Amino acid sequence: MQYNHENLIPGQSVDCVIIGFAEGELKVLVLKWKGMEYWTLPGGFVQNEEDLDAAAIRVLQLRTGIKLPFLEQLYTFGHANRRNQDFENSHLVENLISNESDFVNWVKQRFISTAYISLVEMDKCNIVTDSLSESCEWIAVSELPELVFDHQSMVDKALERIRIQLNYLPIGMNLLPVKFAMRDLQELYESILQKKLDRGNFQKKMLKLNILIRLEKQMNGGAHKAPYLYTFDEVKYNKSLANGIGFIS
Amino acid sequence: MQYNHENLIPGQSVDCVIIGFAEGELKVLVLKWKGMEYWTLPGGFVQNEEDLDAAAIRVLQLRTGIKLPFLEQLYTFGHANRRNQDFENSHLVENLISNESDFVNWVKQRFISTAYISLVEMDKCNIVTDSLSESCEWIAVSELPELVFDHQSMVDKALERIRIQLNYLPIGMNLLPVKFAMRDLQELYESILQKKLDRGNFQKKMLKLNILIRLEKQMNGGAHKAPYLYTFDEVKYNKSLANGIGFIS
Repeated sequence: MQYNHENLIPGQSVDCVIIGFAEGELKVLVLKWKGMEYWTLPGGFVQNEEDLDAAAIRVLQLRTGIKLPFLEQLYTFGHANRRNQDFENSHLVENLISNESDFVNWVKQRFISTAYISLVEMDKCNIVTDSLSESCEWIAVSELPELVFDHQSMVDKALERIRIQLNYLPIGMNLLPVKFAMRDLQELYESILQKKLDRGNFQKKMLKLNILIRLEKQMNGGAHKAPYLYTFDEVKYNKSLANGIGFIS
Repeated sequence: MQYNHENLIPGQSVDCVIIGFAEGELKVLVLKWKGMEYWTLPGGFVQNEEDLDAAAIRVLQLRTGIKLPFLEQLYTFGHANRRNQDFENSHLVENLISNESDFVNWVKQRFISTAYISLVEMDKCNIVTDSLSESCEWIAVSELPELVFDHQSMVDKALERIRIQLNYLPIGMNLLPVKFAMRDLQELYESILQKKLDRGNFQKKMLKLNILIRLEKQMNGGAHKAPYLYTFDEVKYNKSLANGIGFIS
């Protein structure tokens, strides 16, 4: 990786909150700086001729190997001192790129960061850790280590965004396997809402959305105990995604 | 106004989409550059030590006289060429500040702009036009003149945001007068959704939200024809605003 800021615009960065779902929990993709205690979201800088949204897609692939065609913009983090404290308490940048003082000074200027969000199927992500990082891991939201700068606020904002979207958009297509039980879908909702939901009421609401296809029960020994499996009706799901499922739509 | 960029961060601006409602239409507050054909949203730059959100509040007051305690972040506009075309086709900046070439060059660099949105009660806004502008006016969304750069996209994004929010948030408290008829509320919804709604169904849905107080009819000559007036139950309205009125909440 080259440490050169000639082709980069000053003061603007991008960070990505990539969210998956496994073992009943939401997980976030985070990187650990090589040889240091710092964990971060995958992020980076914006090139001179590059659209902001394109920078997020490029940076995500560069740092994690994950190539997504689209990232949703989440929020722009612009506190004047959003990175100062971590820089003052440490030699974060110097340790990483010790002999290139011009770039170090450039990196230490004030940066405003636009955060992006994507919900992904973890199994389909082939993670390739970049040269700056010791590791790139999925970590459960409840077990995240301390993140640098305001990256925890970015995660919090992402979780808030998903929680709000539950009110007017279908969810689950990229987070659940193709076939799933109603209980899996409920666990996804519960992990997002951070509260238990009533089983009967949840099932009633979900079926009313008319985006699920109930699959035939497999007939085997324990069939009477096995729950029904569902899959999303892709056409109806995408229609709901476009039109909303909310109060007025 | 001083033309000096020493105290400003490079490449980052803020723009404000301020929306009101009158005569059954949504209106947007826009400025006209002095002596030119250009219309813009109220916008400006970010100071070195200033939070991005605070810059939006300061800039709005500076350019329109409107002081708001809070502006909601809408979206960050970061296309690499989002301002180029208007600069190339014109002498926009030179005409405004012709003899300060250092500042002109600074202004012509690439800028990423974070847009903010607020819904306001037009009657309560005391507009004070700034020295750069010939006028500062509320113009109906359907009658907006051509705006510079990507400012029309900002307005479009703001309208989209409000349309989505209708699905999970109450609306109207800052846009309607204290007392209003159900028809006024319906007109507000219709102006946002850009479609006619069924009167009976709309009234049923709104009453079910339990955020309206029906006022006693005034007894006068034409009382039998006058519609019921409503006002928002502020406590319940704010509770809905915090908890959402959507599908799952």
